[in-house]
Amino acid sequence: MTGASAAGVSLADVRAAAERIRGTVVRTPLVPDADLSEAVGGEVRLKCESLQKAGSFKARGATNFLAQLPPEELARGVITYSSGNHAQAVAFAAGRLGARAVVVMPTTAPKVKSDGARRLGARVEFAGTTSEHRRVRAGEIAEAEGMVMVPPFDHPWIIAGQGTVALEVVEDWPAVEILLAPIGGGGQASGCGVAMRRLRPDAVVVGVEPEGAPTMRRALDAGGPVTLDRIDTIADGLAPTRAGDLTYACAASFLDDVVLVPDDAIRQAAAHLLERRKLVVEYSGAATVAALLSGAVSAAGRKVCAVLSGGNLDTSLLREILAAGSEAA
Amino acid sequence: MTGASAAGVSLADVRAAAERIRGTVVRTPLVPDADLSEAVGGEVRLKCESLQKAGSFKARGATNFLAQLPPEELARGVITYSSGNHAQAVAFAAGRLGARAVVVMPTTAPKVKSDGARRLGARVEFAGTTSEHRRVRAGEIAEAEGMVMVPPFDHPWIIAGQGTVALEVVEDWPAVEILLAPIGGGGQASGCGVAMRRLRPDAVVVGVEPEGAPTMRRALDAGGPVTLDRIDTIADGLAPTRAGDLTYACAASFLDDVVLVPDDAIRQAAAHLLERRKLVVEYSGAATVAALLSGAVSAAGRKVCAVLSGGNLDTSLLREILAAGSEAA
Repeated sequence: MTGASAAGVSLADVRAAAERIRGTVVRTPLVPDADLSEAVGGEVRLKCESLQKAGSFKARGATNFLAQLPPEELARGVITYSSGNHAQAVAFAAGRLGARAVVVMPTTAPKVKSDGARRLGARVEFAGTTSEHRRVRAGEIAEAEGMVMVPPFDHPWIIAGQGTVALEVVEDWPAVEILLAPIGGGGQASGCGVAMRRLRPDAVVVGVEPEGAPTMRRALDAGGPVTLDRIDTIADGLAPTRAGDLTYACAASFLDDVVLVPDDAIRQAAAHLLERRKLVVEYSGAATVAALLSGAVSAAGRKVCAVLSGGNLDTSLLREILAAGSEAA
Repeated sequence: MTGASAAGVSLADVRAAAERIRGTVVRTPLVPDADLSEAVGGEVRLKCESLQKAGSFKARGATNFLAQLPPEELARGVITYSSGNHAQAVAFAAGRLGARAVVVMPTTAPKVKSDGARRLGARVEFAGTTSEHRRVRAGEIAEAEGMVMVPPFDHPWIIAGQGTVALEVVEDWPAVEILLAPIGGGGQASGCGVAMRRLRPDAVVVGVEPEGAPTMRRALDAGGPVTLDRIDTIADGLAPTRAGDLTYACAASFLDDVVLVPDDAIRQAAAHLLERRKLVVEYSGAATVAALLSGAVSAAGRKVCAVLSGGNLDTSLLREILAAGSEAA
């Protein structure tokens, strides 16, 4: 498989997505982190998708997807299944286009995410605790109500949309050498990988997964997606049980590595971002910073962009982070 | 007094400051706030000085000041007095130039600010609770140790440095119609006023003060700075007892209005920014958003930039905001 054809997503698709979503999503800031740079001996900047519409990068893919649906499909309404951020993103994108949206979330979804989806106008249904539970339930509703399914990550339009993150990073920081993206289903890492490989062939793109949810790492080791029988991580957005077929293909072609980080490092990263960098970032979004703090990725002497993928952190978790941070101090 | 000559600060001075501090301070992002925009019926964007070096806009003025000191003065070391943010800014700027720094802070300074100044390499001294207490003590130390005083706001180099905020706002959002800046001593509002009046003569610049610390409002009403005998606000960075002579002159010439906000609105604004906009902003920095939420400034149908002046919020206050926010929800 050649790089340019993996999963049928090209740099041109990512550029087209950027045109399609311009003005609807936020062109998020790239913020330097002096403390973190000093701590790791490199130069670290943070791509703040926590400040994105609906609170995560997922607004990009969902907007790109819905923008390509013909009016008759939009009129049928859209449905998705998600741990929460893609649900909010679909609710956001549907709301902008006046389309009806149903989102199926796990019974364990953070309240901030289910409330967010409702506030954005979606009907929220709950189903089970795993990505498979909610996928099945969403499929049933889609069939019963004739709605259009918006896949959470394993679709070229979603991957292309998420990849627009990398276009902005390179535009704002042409000298970037390492891009770190968290991996849940792998949509963002895939899209960023596609774009970076063409825009900055010498740059390194590394995916980051929790130790307790190593779906892409296992897929790469096995030569194809495998279904994990157990997921155990605080990063609720990085917890699908299986990598996508397309995102696996992209990861295999375009990622230089996929590293694992322990939950403790994710907690520490979220506390750092909150207390020192003044940014509310959810655990899933802090995984890239955890990779730097834990040493899973060496940033010494390098220019590193860490994508903070989302900010949808429950108030109760904010309190938890504050408590842990103060104990550590 | 003509606009261009008030306090001896011109747009050219602000532009020169921008050149001087480029690469040392952060070009902070301007972030849209969809929820707030909807709530006030206008378009609101937030200038995130909470993401600035040393955690506030003060890094701009301090960097611009120290950059203009001759080597022999830098070698004597610098000293300042501050509720905390200017102290950290001077520590930051001095550290960059290898100069010794002493900062005099109130005994009531938030720990995050005194710790921050120490971490940036300054010697921290504490004196009293009011701006006058610490000014006197800093003067004594300056004389005893032969150090150079860096005034917290009432100096053309400081005002010009703080005004660089407005240059960036106009560059990023040429259509901006209203700029809201918090007023403590008035350095930022003055600098922004100077710049905006020349760059966008039709735009409105409004200063925001806590109801319990209306130093500039009183000065404007009285026709000159007056010393308040009582300050009562949670916004520790907006609590000098007297406006500066230069900043008063700038405010009289360049500000369209100075409005007052109650502490309750400031608390509500900080909770909004934390929970919905995912930004840690200190109470002083949230005053501009409080002016919108409280209706002190009408944003209906207007393009409004609110400067979030700083993010140095104690962990204990973060907990307080979370507790209050959840009660309100």
